[in-house]
Amino acid sequence: MKQPVCVLGLGLIGGSVLRAAQRAGRTVWGYQRSAGAAATARAAGFDASTDLPSVLGRAADAGALIVIAVPMPAVPAMLAAVKQYAPDCPLTDVVSVKRPVRQVVSEYGLLARYVGGHPMAGTADSGWGAADPDLFRDAAWVITADDGCEPAVWRAAAQLALDCGATVVPAGSGDHDEAVARISHLPHVLAEALAIAGADGGELALGLAAGSFRDGVRVAGTSPDLVRAMCEANSAALSAVLDETIAIVTAARDSLRAGQSLHALTAAGHTSYGKYARRLRSEITEPRLGEPGWAARLRAAAREGGVITQLPPPASS
Amino acid sequence: MKQPVCVLGLGLIGGSVLRAAQRAGRTVWGYQRSAGAAATARAAGFDASTDLPSVLGRAADAGALIVIAVPMPAVPAMLAAVKQYAPDCPLTDVVSVKRPVRQVVSEYGLLARYVGGHPMAGTADSGWGAADPDLFRDAAWVITADDGCEPAVWRAAAQLALDCGATVVPAGSGDHDEAVARISHLPHVLAEALAIAGADGGELALGLAAGSFRDGVRVAGTSPDLVRAMCEANSAALSAVLDETIAIVTAARDSLRAGQSLHALTAAGHTSYGKYARRLRSEITEPRLGEPGWAARLRAAAREGGVITQLPPPASS
Repeated sequence: MKQPVCVLGLGLIGGSVLRAAQRAGRTVWGYQRSAGAAATARAAGFDASTDLPSVLGRAADAGALIVIAVPMPAVPAMLAAVKQYAPDCPLTDVVSVKRPVRQVVSEYGLLARYVGGHPMAGTADSGWGAADPDLFRDAAWVITADDGCEPAVWRAAAQLALDCGATVVPAGSGDHDEAVARISHLPHVLAEALAIAGADGGELALGLAAGSFRDGVRVAGTSPDLVRAMCEANSAALSAVLDETIAIVTAARDSLRAGQSLHALTAAGHTSYGKYARRLRSEITEPRLGEPGWAARLRAAAREGGVITQLPPPASS
Repeated sequence: MKQPVCVLGLGLIGGSVLRAAQRAGRTVWGYQRSAGAAATARAAGFDASTDLPSVLGRAADAGALIVIAVPMPAVPAMLAAVKQYAPDCPLTDVVSVKRPVRQVVSEYGLLARYVGGHPMAGTADSGWGAADPDLFRDAAWVITADDGCEPAVWRAAAQLALDCGATVVPAGSGDHDEAVARISHLPHVLAEALAIAGADGGELALGLAAGSFRDGVRVAGTSPDLVRAMCEANSAALSAVLDETIAIVTAARDSLRAGQSLHALTAAGHTSYGKYARRLRSEITEPRLGEPGWAARLRAAAREGGVITQLPPPASS
């Protein structure tokens, strides 16, 4: 029988995990703080409750995989409850940063049963009402491969991601946070800056805006609190990437002002775009989970574009 | 009978003008330097030639509106030919910056018969093969309203834009260049910078990229020479807007590094996005072309989001 799944937080991501895992034939239930959203989920045929101790007690009895799916500020409260009611269950999460979550998990003494996760999927909408069992289809889902993690927990978290239709990327927590600073948090900061610079041009500028502006500002339509929460939780990695970006834009500005060519910017930008358009993806076939150095080898493979679309059977001893 | 149209340069924009104007019932012909492209246009049923003196002689005979549709570096050569073969024809252009074109037109002594233009439309493709009579449908098309311009020439250029399906925005040349720095050239610079920062994260970062990165880098796929030409031709306005943008991003970086909130960025960005999403557009109903101060009044109306979708009949005296 497949391992049951207990989801804490039934917003867009947690709700989508609940729906996708149930469709994959897993026994699933969840906790939702809001009584209204829990009732809506129950009315849709899902097992949702506002009683956190009861939800976690059931996870402890069933040996379920627990998935923390609340925003970063609410993570400590969830960990405190897990420690009290289900400290031996395998534990993962779907929060958008990984080092900060890992740090808090460590403070609660739950690191031995934890492996981090982050599905690279979302929509402009939020909440249970936007939850979609197809949200993760063909998306990348990072399952963190840090030294000392438990192979059985890693396998459990990775299997959930695969059951939800995603592709597993076994990145280290630090590698993850640096990567998402570049490809998720930086685009949000630049979209906000572009929106501000555009609107500062008044109605004339906004009325002349066409495709390049429309695409460049799209994610500035995201809830400002959500953008803040993502970016502030990853401040170290993001501020370093902002340093790089400021240097690139400043060099372009200086070239223009000196009457020189923008060739350096446009050539590098176009080459980089080509790397993105033709990015590599290869199936990771080794090591076996639990082999000496397995986590470091997975991390190294992920840095080269390696992914996992199917788990090998557990090693027999 | 509608005024004939003579288009110099049959690339994406010029070719689309030729197609759209012909469909609108205008007599049109064009010059194309490349014999291959001219032959292709002729095979498609259009009157295209590589003989610039002959093309312009015909314009002079017919009193055609001449449309310069070549890249900025080729504009002086076109103006030299216009001055020699058709100096009395009304003259407009579709180049993406307006002050620099106006300056060159002035140097050739053709300012009295000139009004600038810029249709805010394009595709990732280029050349006659990408030309599309629907390219300008519902697009904004700036017709410059500078002091001293000739009302009859202004009307001729505006009527062409309307016949091509566009909405006329009567901005001043300087206002135009500042606006497009914000909503067209800045998005290109930021897309190049984002592409570089993303690719610097290697295959892991590129593999985790989802919607926010995809939309943010899209225009970095544009030909680097085209981006250079656009941005370098508008260097004064663009470098000023880059100053503003660098200041916004630097303030965000400093907040993150000091452990402070990103509220200032995300709140302003979201508010600005709302201004874009709900941008105003109102029909300009006065002044009559040629009234005292008409160009200044049109410029002022354009700054408030005013557009022209239908020209009033010429003033009777």
